[in-house]
Amino acid sequence: MLDGLFRPKSVAIIGASNNPLSIGHIVIQNLVDHNFKGPIYPINPKSGFIKSFKAYPSISDVPDDIDLVNISIKNTLVPTVLEDCGKKGVKFAIVHTAGFKEVGKEGLELEKQIVDVAHKYWMRIYGPNSQGIQNSDPSVSVYANFTFVPMKPGNISIVAQSGGVGETLKLHLHRIGKGIRMYSSFGNEADVSMNEIIDYFGQDEETKVIMVHIETLKDPAGFLEVAGRVTRKKPILALKTGKTSEGVAAVASHTGSLMEQDTLADVIFEKSGVLRFHSQQEIIEAAIALSTQPIPKSENVVVVTNTGGPAIIAVDECISAGLKLAKLSPETGKALGELLFSEAIVSNPVDVIATAGDKEYGGTVEALLKDSNIDSLLLNFVTPPFVDCEAVARKLAEIGATAQKPIVCVILTIEERWGEVIRLIRESGIPVYDFAESASRALASMIKYGQILQREEPDYREYEGDRKKAEEIMKHHRGEEKFLPQADVFELLRCYGISAVRTVRIETGDELKKEAQKLNYPLVLKVDAEEIVHKTDAGGVCLDLRDEDSLLKAFDAMAGKFAKYKPGFILQENLADGKEVIMGSKANDGLGPTIMFGLGGVFVETLKDVQFRLAPLSQQDALDMIRTIKGYPILEGARGAKPADIGKLAETLVRLSQLSSDFPEIDEMDLNPVFAFEKGKGVEVVDARLKIRSIG
Amino acid sequence: MLDGLFRPKSVAIIGASNNPLSIGHIVIQNLVDHNFKGPIYPINPKSGFIKSFKAYPSISDVPDDIDLVNISIKNTLVPTVLEDCGKKGVKFAIVHTAGFKEVGKEGLELEKQIVDVAHKYWMRIYGPNSQGIQNSDPSVSVYANFTFVPMKPGNISIVAQSGGVGETLKLHLHRIGKGIRMYSSFGNEADVSMNEIIDYFGQDEETKVIMVHIETLKDPAGFLEVAGRVTRKKPILALKTGKTSEGVAAVASHTGSLMEQDTLADVIFEKSGVLRFHSQQEIIEAAIALSTQPIPKSENVVVVTNTGGPAIIAVDECISAGLKLAKLSPETGKALGELLFSEAIVSNPVDVIATAGDKEYGGTVEALLKDSNIDSLLLNFVTPPFVDCEAVARKLAEIGATAQKPIVCVILTIEERWGEVIRLIRESGIPVYDFAESASRALASMIKYGQILQREEPDYREYEGDRKKAEEIMKHHRGEEKFLPQADVFELLRCYGISAVRTVRIETGDELKKEAQKLNYPLVLKVDAEEIVHKTDAGGVCLDLRDEDSLLKAFDAMAGKFAKYKPGFILQENLADGKEVIMGSKANDGLGPTIMFGLGGVFVETLKDVQFRLAPLSQQDALDMIRTIKGYPILEGARGAKPADIGKLAETLVRLSQLSSDFPEIDEMDLNPVFAFEKGKGVEVVDARLKIRSIG
Repeated sequence: MLDGLFRPKSVAIIGASNNPLSIGHIVIQNLVDHNFKGPIYPINPKSGFIKSFKAYPSISDVPDDIDLVNISIKNTLVPTVLEDCGKKGVKFAIVHTAGFKEVGKEGLELEKQIVDVAHKYWMRIYGPNSQGIQNSDPSVSVYANFTFVPMKPGNISIVAQSGGVGETLKLHLHRIGKGIRMYSSFGNEADVSMNEIIDYFGQDEETKVIMVHIETLKDPAGFLEVAGRVTRKKPILALKTGKTSEGVAAVASHTGSLMEQDTLADVIFEKSGVLRFHSQQEIIEAAIALSTQPIPKSENVVVVTNTGGPAIIAVDECISAGLKLAKLSPETGKALGELLFSEAIVSNPVDVIATAGDKEYGGTVEALLKDSNIDSLLLNFVTPPFVDCEAVARKLAEIGATAQKPIVCVILTIEERWGEVIRLIRESGIPVYDFAESASRALASMIKYGQILQREEPDYREYEGDRKKAEEIMKHHRGEEKFLPQADVFELLRCYGISAVRTVRIETGDELKKEAQKLNYPLVLKVDAEEIVHKTDAGGVCLDLRDEDSLLKAFDAMAGKFAKYKPGFILQENLADGKEVIMGSKANDGLGPTIMFGLGGVFVETLKDVQFRLAPLSQQDALDMIRTIKGYPILEGARGAKPADIGKLAETLVRLSQLSSDFPEIDEMDLNPVFAFEKGKGVEVVDARLKIRSIG
Repeated sequence: MLDGLFRPKSVAIIGASNNPLSIGHIVIQNLVDHNFKGPIYPINPKSGFIKSFKAYPSISDVPDDIDLVNISIKNTLVPTVLEDCGKKGVKFAIVHTAGFKEVGKEGLELEKQIVDVAHKYWMRIYGPNSQGIQNSDPSVSVYANFTFVPMKPGNISIVAQSGGVGETLKLHLHRIGKGIRMYSSFGNEADVSMNEIIDYFGQDEETKVIMVHIETLKDPAGFLEVAGRVTRKKPILALKTGKTSEGVAAVASHTGSLMEQDTLADVIFEKSGVLRFHSQQEIIEAAIALSTQPIPKSENVVVVTNTGGPAIIAVDECISAGLKLAKLSPETGKALGELLFSEAIVSNPVDVIATAGDKEYGGTVEALLKDSNIDSLLLNFVTPPFVDCEAVARKLAEIGATAQKPIVCVILTIEERWGEVIRLIRESGIPVYDFAESASRALASMIKYGQILQREEPDYREYEGDRKKAEEIMKHHRGEEKFLPQADVFELLRCYGISAVRTVRIETGDELKKEAQKLNYPLVLKVDAEEIVHKTDAGGVCLDLRDEDSLLKAFDAMAGKFAKYKPGFILQENLADGKEVIMGSKANDGLGPTIMFGLGGVFVETLKDVQFRLAPLSQQDALDMIRTIKGYPILEGARGAKPADIGKLAETLVRLSQLSSDFPEIDEMDLNPVFAFEKGKGVEVVDARLKIRSIG
């Protein structure tokens, strides 16, 4: 429980100072300015008073219990001071001081030391190198943070890895007069974790929306668990930055190289129902709407405007975001026809025209709210100098205060003349935006959250398989870091019910003849040696060998070419042409593996047309992955071709997910190509690589 | 010349009224509020005075010359009033009144009538259904517009098809205290055209940036000409809306269906060097930077920050927009190392850390400006409460006023406390943004304009061809609307030096045998009848016929199947496998055709991986089209495959551009597939369709 951090009954400031430019001073100032509902104890061995507060030489001199301390003294002094805090029974220590993990090895040692000291006394460390926390709950009103955006009560809580980004988010809510509930920028996360904070905000009844800024996920598994739980109650909006950083896992094979850090964040967000945003402005826009408006039941939106151009932009944006323009019911059409001026356009968008007053604009919104074809409203209102704009605003505010469907509003006006219009509408809870684009995007986010809430229960079907035999195979390799021989990989796949092409492995020309007789021509011959990873590129694959003669010739050539590797050879039946797809898995530490699906060949290499999901895959996940690749029409049977066996593809993905989850030592798997035959004829793995890792 | 419109010496208001909610009243108020530098004459047959101005019963009663009238009377009264204006010698009439073309046939008649009346007297009509014009030039200061955003001098001129969008653009410049130069929202464009206005703004020395909002291009050819001329002197920024509208040209074939209205706008913008934007906010952000900052010489940017997180966002955005992080020179590195605190990060981004004051932050910017590796600077400044932020701002403003490289700035602060910081920096000309994303995007736009200015002279190479023979072929078909027989299409292509596969057309089985002997097996047999457009889908194509036997069998089957069409048949040599590409052209009225290029098959059908350019194509255009498709690596030879003959592909595109430009009756051409063989082995058209139209 983080109550001692976010709801402290008393705060001590270690490093308090009368220098107004010091952090210790600024924190006290912020606590005072925001009327913290508890005593403030400056700690300073030299000054008798800090501002008008009596200062104490040490925390042990304070004649009161202390929940929270803010520390902004030299880094090397922190451990000693924490000993005192621990003895005093302090619950949480916000360490603003920098110079820990972020500066290298020595700092990391110091950071471990302060956590050890704290834990000795059941105390928790927040930070170090942290900004602080805020809680606007009027019964607490704590601003234990050295930043500058004023705080007032609201229902959006923010947790930000970067203080600068967190400040930006607060700033823009402040600019439109919107409060926040709680705020946290947690620094190095040495002890109190982002996941704990999200969990805490999730349990806070007054928090309606959580905004999260993430640079790197320290504990992805924990995030998945917490976020998955919280998003069922309230939306989590995430801004993940550092997308183009070099922090990409260095991995060897194809599948791996496509799975970057950022993809991991994406699959975790997807699985846990977190809404991801790609700009600070967009996350703010969405948070504003989600904090006051009900969640749309469907993507059916109506646009209302009193000027044409911006409505066209709203329509462009809504359609691009996957929304649908609702068709007005005949009753609504009739009602608006009677209500509005003859020049008005009763369609979607509804153009009430610039001369519409409160009766026309307001009446239109009332009629549209009643229409069951419509699940959300986007209003565009420019303030015409020839209309009583405040009357329109009063009417819209009155409607907005009780509307059961979400409304977002764009107002084009100058504040110095019609500021009251904006104020009235905002006060009713209807979010007001400057641009049609913003309102449309916010609506699209709300609809996306509605879809997350409506997700059906995932069907985690368990397929039969011979796990015992799989374990037998794996046992021989476990503990090493290497690629498994192809025969073993194919056998493993078969244990999990994944069909792989008929294959034999041979060493010599004599074996070749004998084994070839067991298979049906045409055949494929492939070299098989650990050193040769990209066989095709190396000239180690011969396709379509139609008789023994050509097989022997191909063998001789290859045996000569690769003699130095002392390779084995794989002999396979040549399959009828299927559609080439690729599947893969990549292990994640402390988390299920990431599963990949895409079309094979150039599609994956050049166009990166692939989808990722986090294991375990549900039936819906697998189908979704297949249906959301751009090339899906090719699998569906573009231009008269027969559709591929989508059902079997999905099943194979789920089976792959089960195999890679059952054996965490599987570092990566790359089934490439997999042939998908026409509906009813299944799926066959043609080539596969599997790399294991040694795990603790 | 539009001087009478934008620099009127006198204005009369027809429909002037003492009703403060009337347009006639509001226009007078706006003229008065902005101190119009000329006499204002209200025209009203009933009132003696409007505000404090003497009103005249009719324009003919005014004892003075009139350059401009604003008309806001009933639509049907407009023609009569215009007669009076014409007789009086009025130069321009802004018609605010609606109820013309936009309401249907009768309105269109009325609109034609008012233009006819005006032209009788060499008078010009602006509108009807128009908002009006503004010119902030202090020697004119005319606000002949009924809207509400206050005007002050600036150097951005705006021309907007939608008054609502135009108002939004003005509004956001006003909000950050930025003026405009001229403004125009021109309504129905019955006479004075958008292109004339852009041309006028282009010639205005004080206009540094032109923002254009477009819903539909009334005269694309005129726009191309004017914009192409103006963008060599100053940037034109365009917002084209209505992207998802149903206003898509209904066309029959594949190529055509990909070429929507929006694509036409794109190719026109590309050719004329217009920067296209997809949101109102982004166009504003870019205009602000371009109006004061020099154009970057390269994409090498440096990011400076005093807080980490937002800089990461700036880097993400810059990299995604194609910018490059400049590498600091050793001298710069050394200078910053000496200047900055030890915790600072001297790299790119440069993190001067939060405690940096004017000496550190300012000195850093000065050093970076001197570094020849750097061509633009993005500054991120959060106002730390423990720093003299105004001193930093004064220093940055001082530097910004004389900097020879573009600087954009993000300031994270609250205006009520550090408004002066924002004001000082803005005043120096450095644009200030709220978000790192905005600053990065603005910078990217500036760099894009720099690249437009640096475009090399297009190489419009004319290839040899047999135009006479082509004319002979076309002559037989001209005047009809139909698909040409394939043999003629291939011959036309050959006239323009475009190689097409060896082909004969036959009617009967007997002919078949004889003609087949002239060609080399394997052969391809295709049905050929006007009714069968998608031959493959219809089962009208047989590939890889290896001998006479299989050819005859295939012929019999096809002849039976398509008997009802009495078809002909095409016999072709089966080409070695080339890479499949597709090329096409689509005629545009009054403008060169649009040329298309893409990878064939599923790439064009499913992934829409195609590029468009407007004919005539230069060599650079053709190469650009090829290099910018997503699948380009496939042509370059992905995974060890041999590269395709890119040079010959480009040449073929230019030749196609010449063919389709020479014969405007070619409505659309669809070369699909075209085989691109390996480098040096050329390009071969395998199938082609060509539809002609009858033109006036």
